[in-house]
Amino acid sequence: MSKTTIKLCDTFLYPRQELGRSSTIPASLARCEETGRLKAFTLQWKAGDPDQPHIYWDSDVAKVLEGMAYTSALFQDKDLEKQLDELVALVLTAQQPDGYLNTHFTVVEPENRWKNLFDWHELYCAGHLIEAAVARYESLGKRDFLDAMCKYADLIWNVFGPDGKPGYPGHEELELALIKLYRATGNKKYLDLANLFIDRRGTEPNYYLQEDSPDVSYRDLRNRQAHIPVRQQHEATGHAVRAVYLYAGMADAAFETGDTELMDLCDELFDDITTKKMYITGGIGCRIPGEGLGSAYELPLNRAYAESCAAMGLVQFAARMLKYRGNVKYADIIERLICNGAISGLSLSGDRFFYANPHACDKEFRSLFHWARTRQPWHNTSCCPTSYCRFLPQLGNFCYRAKEKDLYIDIAASAEIETEQYKVKIISGWPWNGNVTVEILRGSVNLHIRIPDWCGGNYEISGTGSEQKRYWHSKDAVSAGEKIKIKFELKATLLYPDCRIPSTRGKAAIRRGPMIYCVESPDCEGFAPGELSIPANSTWQESQCDALPEGTVILTGEGYAELPGKELYSTEPPEFRPVTYRAVPYALWQNRGKAEMEIFFTLK
Amino acid sequence: MSKTTIKLCDTFLYPRQELGRSSTIPASLARCEETGRLKAFTLQWKAGDPDQPHIYWDSDVAKVLEGMAYTSALFQDKDLEKQLDELVALVLTAQQPDGYLNTHFTVVEPENRWKNLFDWHELYCAGHLIEAAVARYESLGKRDFLDAMCKYADLIWNVFGPDGKPGYPGHEELELALIKLYRATGNKKYLDLANLFIDRRGTEPNYYLQEDSPDVSYRDLRNRQAHIPVRQQHEATGHAVRAVYLYAGMADAAFETGDTELMDLCDELFDDITTKKMYITGGIGCRIPGEGLGSAYELPLNRAYAESCAAMGLVQFAARMLKYRGNVKYADIIERLICNGAISGLSLSGDRFFYANPHACDKEFRSLFHWARTRQPWHNTSCCPTSYCRFLPQLGNFCYRAKEKDLYIDIAASAEIETEQYKVKIISGWPWNGNVTVEILRGSVNLHIRIPDWCGGNYEISGTGSEQKRYWHSKDAVSAGEKIKIKFELKATLLYPDCRIPSTRGKAAIRRGPMIYCVESPDCEGFAPGELSIPANSTWQESQCDALPEGTVILTGEGYAELPGKELYSTEPPEFRPVTYRAVPYALWQNRGKAEMEIFFTLK
Repeated sequence: MSKTTIKLCDTFLYPRQELGRSSTIPASLARCEETGRLKAFTLQWKAGDPDQPHIYWDSDVAKVLEGMAYTSALFQDKDLEKQLDELVALVLTAQQPDGYLNTHFTVVEPENRWKNLFDWHELYCAGHLIEAAVARYESLGKRDFLDAMCKYADLIWNVFGPDGKPGYPGHEELELALIKLYRATGNKKYLDLANLFIDRRGTEPNYYLQEDSPDVSYRDLRNRQAHIPVRQQHEATGHAVRAVYLYAGMADAAFETGDTELMDLCDELFDDITTKKMYITGGIGCRIPGEGLGSAYELPLNRAYAESCAAMGLVQFAARMLKYRGNVKYADIIERLICNGAISGLSLSGDRFFYANPHACDKEFRSLFHWARTRQPWHNTSCCPTSYCRFLPQLGNFCYRAKEKDLYIDIAASAEIETEQYKVKIISGWPWNGNVTVEILRGSVNLHIRIPDWCGGNYEISGTGSEQKRYWHSKDAVSAGEKIKIKFELKATLLYPDCRIPSTRGKAAIRRGPMIYCVESPDCEGFAPGELSIPANSTWQESQCDALPEGTVILTGEGYAELPGKELYSTEPPEFRPVTYRAVPYALWQNRGKAEMEIFFTLK
Repeated sequence: MSKTTIKLCDTFLYPRQELGRSSTIPASLARCEETGRLKAFTLQWKAGDPDQPHIYWDSDVAKVLEGMAYTSALFQDKDLEKQLDELVALVLTAQQPDGYLNTHFTVVEPENRWKNLFDWHELYCAGHLIEAAVARYESLGKRDFLDAMCKYADLIWNVFGPDGKPGYPGHEELELALIKLYRATGNKKYLDLANLFIDRRGTEPNYYLQEDSPDVSYRDLRNRQAHIPVRQQHEATGHAVRAVYLYAGMADAAFETGDTELMDLCDELFDDITTKKMYITGGIGCRIPGEGLGSAYELPLNRAYAESCAAMGLVQFAARMLKYRGNVKYADIIERLICNGAISGLSLSGDRFFYANPHACDKEFRSLFHWARTRQPWHNTSCCPTSYCRFLPQLGNFCYRAKEKDLYIDIAASAEIETEQYKVKIISGWPWNGNVTVEILRGSVNLHIRIPDWCGGNYEISGTGSEQKRYWHSKDAVSAGEKIKIKFELKATLLYPDCRIPSTRGKAAIRRGPMIYCVESPDCEGFAPGELSIPANSTWQESQCDALPEGTVILTGEGYAELPGKELYSTEPPEFRPVTYRAVPYALWQNRGKAEMEIFFTLK
């Protein structure tokens, strides 16, 4: 296995990777400790004790462990690696002689093991433990956790394999984890089990309607993507996180088995999400009930759910599709997400989190979501905080793809990329300006540089090459000592939503390069952000803001604030006064105290 | 007691009164029969039987009885009166020797009588029974029900009077009912009890937090207007129906006791609702959770709750304030409601009902409120259908006020008004045109004619008189044989909402006279109502529509439909095509099948 290292050094993503190491992971570990999530693995809990292990606690810990594995490797942080060693040892003490590892179903209700796949997250927790074990093995070369998880996966194979019960995960995730395990071990059984789970899903007789569970009442099969067989699902539906985890696993399975029909379906589902059901920030899952994807164009703003985990999950799905299919549309969505909707859930302090990401914060919002108006230190359902632990150290992998003699620059963030074949340094103003220098430090490499959607086709690249399908390909390999200079046009502009979206009709948003902007109340003098109208020919002055990270470009624009009416409903047309406002990147909103916030503005 | 009869004969309200008699009351009685609500009064129910009497069933029956009393008097319908006699006899069989009358707490859980005023609707049911009894006595002169309810009220006095438990109704209503009972009987005890309930409300120690109830857990005192003493409440808050019933009772109490401080407070609460928390249709109560009033300007459209009962309750509150204070603003709101938000809950067939009244029906709406998209034949909580039974026969009282030698024409619907002093006939195009003739058939009368808000001060009145505070007062009494001709300007215009309302910024609605219009999908060719933009200088052609009642004015206008975007979010400004659309009165929407619907349109 050839080793590739991608080290970001840009001013937007890299500081978050540092933050993950210095704040997000330590904070998450502290919360896992305080809440009893770590102690649960000692299996000492007895009825009547406090801190009863919950059905999804193991997954929270597993996700922190996965993040610790990537992060300790990325930063070559030996202390973190040692801490991880100790935690893995703790986790493994909870493994049963038959390979089973689940704190809740070992100490709280052992009689109900595998009884309720629909709701009880057992296979989901298994999947996250497997992902953590593979991350540790691949990042740090340590096999103990991996071997233990193979034993667990073997048990799951015995229970749910071809000769076992016809069940499948109620919260998808294990599918993609099993394929990671297959890739790490070469044991095809794990791939087969993933395929079995995918192809069983939604078939008749429906497993979930026949499950021998103490609490089978009404079950919303569509929320679990289990209402019809997966291969008949041509619209993305149901619980948003579950959906994208399933689709990511399907893409992996399709790639491994060469199943183009399944891969085409993944592409169709990706398009359905990103052309009909996605917020401008890349966020998905508009519905509060069921944390679900909505109908086409159903994208309410102030009660957007847009769960942080769903945004990060869509990045994972898109990254797989980009790897397998190479189409630039996948990279466009990844960039949209990592600059906006997949980062907005994390505070600049690294230890506060949005579970749901509002896309407008106004008077209506306050009554709906008062608890979600500020990022919280933790959530009882703590999937989102722990997702950031593992998401942040992977950010470099979403920007660069190294393949033998080729380097795909999907997102030109400043970085060093090193493989056996070459070492390349990228010096870039991304995401704040469009100037990029690609310098070959060692070896030679064929460069494939994505032309971002936001430059509108306006760019210059100094080397010899040509554009095909929005990737610029160098004609020949570029060698050590050579530099390629790139200038992407990066300017602020209006973005108009499709009129089929009810919540944003007659409005436009401000985008600058990959960043979607918003207006918060501290940047409005004497008016609410929602009362702002902006001209269709708006231009903006660019500046910095002391309260936001160095380099962040703030936009100052001229608009109109509507004056309050004399009556609630009046025959007099509204009056406006000219106002100056500032817009800040959406990903950074709500880092300067509580505020009203808007992304879309009426045009005037 | 001098007898006044007000007989409407207009084309908008009167047909609904006929419908109430021919459809709404019979349908409600049928549902009360089917669901066991009538049988409950036989007290035969035993544990294990179906149709267990529910805590608020008695109120449903009482409201139908109240409506039957008004309706049988209005139409001099002897059959209906006989049916009412039989039902009253049935209801009275359930009265206990001590005067108590509640089916649920007599047969289901007699041990819990008066145990949970906060939630269990016992005093609310009592209030509706009293209202029905007073209606029967005043409309038909029959005392049996009234006497029985005095006995019940006496029991309540003994339990909760000055020497009793310090409780008060968890669902306000009994306050206003007791004042009706006081007026009907002259027994001041009932007025005193109403005042006691009002002044106890929200005082410390809070009764609801000390109640000896089996299910006291978290109690949202604000939802019950019981978080602070009533006289300290300067903002309308909490459950919308409860709020307006309470305020109506407070207004009655303030009038009877000459308490100007309390009356001023009622005025303040009325203004708070109608200048900050009211939909353009007059609907109130924007929040689904708690069926509550929101913050100022919190008026979402597609998830408007705007319960039919709350709209009818606001009419009752406004009618009292108009009677006691005479300010034209109260009449403006009454007219807005009876033409729009208090009528929209009733189908043209008279037997289907909206509980919540959507103020936009779009893609987002469908996921929120699929059950509320069409009017339903009944609701398990059937307060709204039964409210229409009693509301419709009272419509004339909301248009005309007769006081000895004076006639207040608050809403100039065609009608005949007869008192001992005079008989007046009004021939009017209201609400479809502004031509009104007032003909004195007998006696002489001082006329006081409201100049409607919607005419913008443009009117002609043929007689001698002068305008003060938007009422035209005849200089002298007008005598038999004389006619006054009035011409109010009545034309379609745009209405602009205050910019502090988030959901309607940059948009306008269409109003013609007292009617708010909406656009439904059957009246849009190839576009959704929400995709329609209209010019700020719009004009409309007026016509009729076969599928709507004769006389209904339909507006045909020219606008622009936005074309679907090529991308979900695009740098290309949207394109529009010119389209023709039709607008229909909001009160009549969803009478031609399922449809998307919008009231507010982006201006172009």
